[in-house]
Amino acid sequence: MTIQASHPADAGPAGDDRPWRPLDIDGLPLRDSLRGLSPYGAPQLDVPVRLNTNENPHPPSIGLVDALGKAATLVATEANRYPDRDAEALRADLAYYLTPDAGFGVHTAQVWAANGSNEILQQLCQAFGGPGRVAVGFEPSYSMHRLIALATATEWVREERAADFTLSAEAVTEAIECHRPALLFLCSPNNPTGTALPLDVVVAACEAMARVGSGMVVVDEAYAEFRRAGVPSALTLLPRHPRLIVTRTMSKAFALAGARVGYLAAHPAVVDALQLVRLPYHLSSFTQAVARTALAHADELLATVEAVKAQRDRIVLELGALGLRLAPSDANFVSFGLFADQRAVWRGLLDAGVLVRDVGLPGWLRVTAGLPAEVDAFLAALGRVLAGSDVAADGIVTLAGG
Amino acid sequence: MTIQASHPADAGPAGDDRPWRPLDIDGLPLRDSLRGLSPYGAPQLDVPVRLNTNENPHPPSIGLVDALGKAATLVATEANRYPDRDAEALRADLAYYLTPDAGFGVHTAQVWAANGSNEILQQLCQAFGGPGRVAVGFEPSYSMHRLIALATATEWVREERAADFTLSAEAVTEAIECHRPALLFLCSPNNPTGTALPLDVVVAACEAMARVGSGMVVVDEAYAEFRRAGVPSALTLLPRHPRLIVTRTMSKAFALAGARVGYLAAHPAVVDALQLVRLPYHLSSFTQAVARTALAHADELLATVEAVKAQRDRIVLELGALGLRLAPSDANFVSFGLFADQRAVWRGLLDAGVLVRDVGLPGWLRVTAGLPAEVDAFLAALGRVLAGSDVAADGIVTLAGG
Repeated sequence: MTIQASHPADAGPAGDDRPWRPLDIDGLPLRDSLRGLSPYGAPQLDVPVRLNTNENPHPPSIGLVDALGKAATLVATEANRYPDRDAEALRADLAYYLTPDAGFGVHTAQVWAANGSNEILQQLCQAFGGPGRVAVGFEPSYSMHRLIALATATEWVREERAADFTLSAEAVTEAIECHRPALLFLCSPNNPTGTALPLDVVVAACEAMARVGSGMVVVDEAYAEFRRAGVPSALTLLPRHPRLIVTRTMSKAFALAGARVGYLAAHPAVVDALQLVRLPYHLSSFTQAVARTALAHADELLATVEAVKAQRDRIVLELGALGLRLAPSDANFVSFGLFADQRAVWRGLLDAGVLVRDVGLPGWLRVTAGLPAEVDAFLAALGRVLAGSDVAADGIVTLAGG
Repeated sequence: MTIQASHPADAGPAGDDRPWRPLDIDGLPLRDSLRGLSPYGAPQLDVPVRLNTNENPHPPSIGLVDALGKAATLVATEANRYPDRDAEALRADLAYYLTPDAGFGVHTAQVWAANGSNEILQQLCQAFGGPGRVAVGFEPSYSMHRLIALATATEWVREERAADFTLSAEAVTEAIECHRPALLFLCSPNNPTGTALPLDVVVAACEAMARVGSGMVVVDEAYAEFRRAGVPSALTLLPRHPRLIVTRTMSKAFALAGARVGYLAAHPAVVDALQLVRLPYHLSSFTQAVARTALAHADELLATVEAVKAQRDRIVLELGALGLRLAPSDANFVSFGLFADQRAVWRGLLDAGVLVRDVGLPGWLRVTAGLPAEVDAFLAALGRVLAGSDVAADGIVTLAGG
């Protein structure tokens, strides 16, 4: 990590620019499992078209900005007091929001919220994982599942999706019976492939977990609102499967990545369990107020979801016409390939001012469905980058001069 | 935990009030170390005088409320985008704020921020603690040190303070040599006793840790701004001691408990280490903006510290005059005793509308220095509760009829 002076305070004592002795991270008594790692995160680059972190490209309306500011002003009057530790009102609003998707009346006691779904996942690993316990995921998937398991000293077992990124009930059942995991992570729609999971796979996982009795099934539905018509949410399974946990986020559909609000729905006993590991007052009064205000504007925000889906479908169509390989997407992004050198394509797009994501899946890149003009820019830039490229018989694209 | 219907969504499906099967927390595959625990936290009771969580009793001024609202409005316009993952601007502001107390120019690279100092402490345990590693604390102290060690699978070793709650350089050195801890927690001023630690004890800890090489020394300075004149901060030791970490919070002196902002100053390599375990985008753009706005109003907010200290000193004087035992306090609270049954005194005060804290230290209660009228109410209520009580030769107070 480079260290840059960015403030008057950065002037060191006389005779030495920096008020510390030489020492790097390897000289610290770091946990062994962390040695050699790099911090997680996409590059935060200031480019005209950012399509790399699956943000919703629609900023809040003027009316919503005003409402968010007013809500923050109101809680500011009591900023000296700790927030509601159990975030009861926010959880009630989230339960109400989830009810149509769940197909039953979701109860406040079934809902828990935290600073982003990452904190939800971390609390789940702290409550159910830990030393001597195993978490299983099917890769490629959201890489924070693995990293959070690591940070909580939970052993990570990597299973693989099929070559077309699908996952079968048999594969899931076998993994549970073989590894007897404390946590089984499913992701639907899956990041980075975009594919939604048929509900029978989730049912098979819950049933196998009930038989084996070793742990919990977590379905990460961060992108659920973007799924295509006819794909039911795993929420619908909650009344019958007490070992099922469905996580969601307000970062994507609610266009609220800046506010860091994730949540889950599960059996109330799971919420009780998380209360044993949550940090007290983990959710600020500002976060609670901002999230409730956004939920009160759900209709307006969810209208952006339809606009984003239209751009996603347009990307699928256009990239397909270019002869690229695609995974069917139920999310707000599309993974595309196959490239002999996806880094070169990523760099070519960046040079054209378009930032997409290289998630480390050889041959593939991921692009977020942005505003129409952003998608225009992406498609135009990709067309230029791929001009003159060679397509092999196995569909692998090699750039001209590459 | 009781489950209360609090929303229209809470109506269950026909034929069953609740959309879940019977299951309690013991029926879940919870980590063994969590079984039988209760969630941490003081009762959140709605009473006229709340002096139980060491909040700053001074709400923000109208001007600050307005500024906080405007700052939130500004970031709301980009709420669809992820926040600055490294919170660079906030960390620069915090470095600038710490500089006078540190006595050298604190650098942005030496500062890290998170959702409350609890999250800072958790990240420290994740980076340096974990399975097979030991954290040592000197109790009574802030009980979250122990609980966060537990939640991160770090073994907790409890050492004890002297009967007068002091801690010597010899005791600290011996604990380090004996346990070779990954983390040694010191707390100054100490919660719940209020006593500040002489700097030579911190120096002894850092020197012993450098010799032993097993870990890091954490000085929790959550209440540092309330310390009496002439007590230097452990920040002053940072340039000479790369294994020293000083944690702080904006909850107390900055009257910002609702916003959940904690931070640390340490060697930049420590900040690098925390980046390996921090959840990406852990600090919302609202949190960053609110904290920066409060820091821009530091003069106004720190003026409340002087008012609080005056009330603290008044409590010390008045309780001393009542013949109670007290620990000298450098914080915004006072621990007082000794009671044959501190629960009865706590209950008597609550019946009079005054909520103080029973931290589980036999014979002792802790009261936060509130507004003058709140301290009036506390002192009057305590006088009534103690009326006719019996004081034994060893100073232990038994209530009348107790």
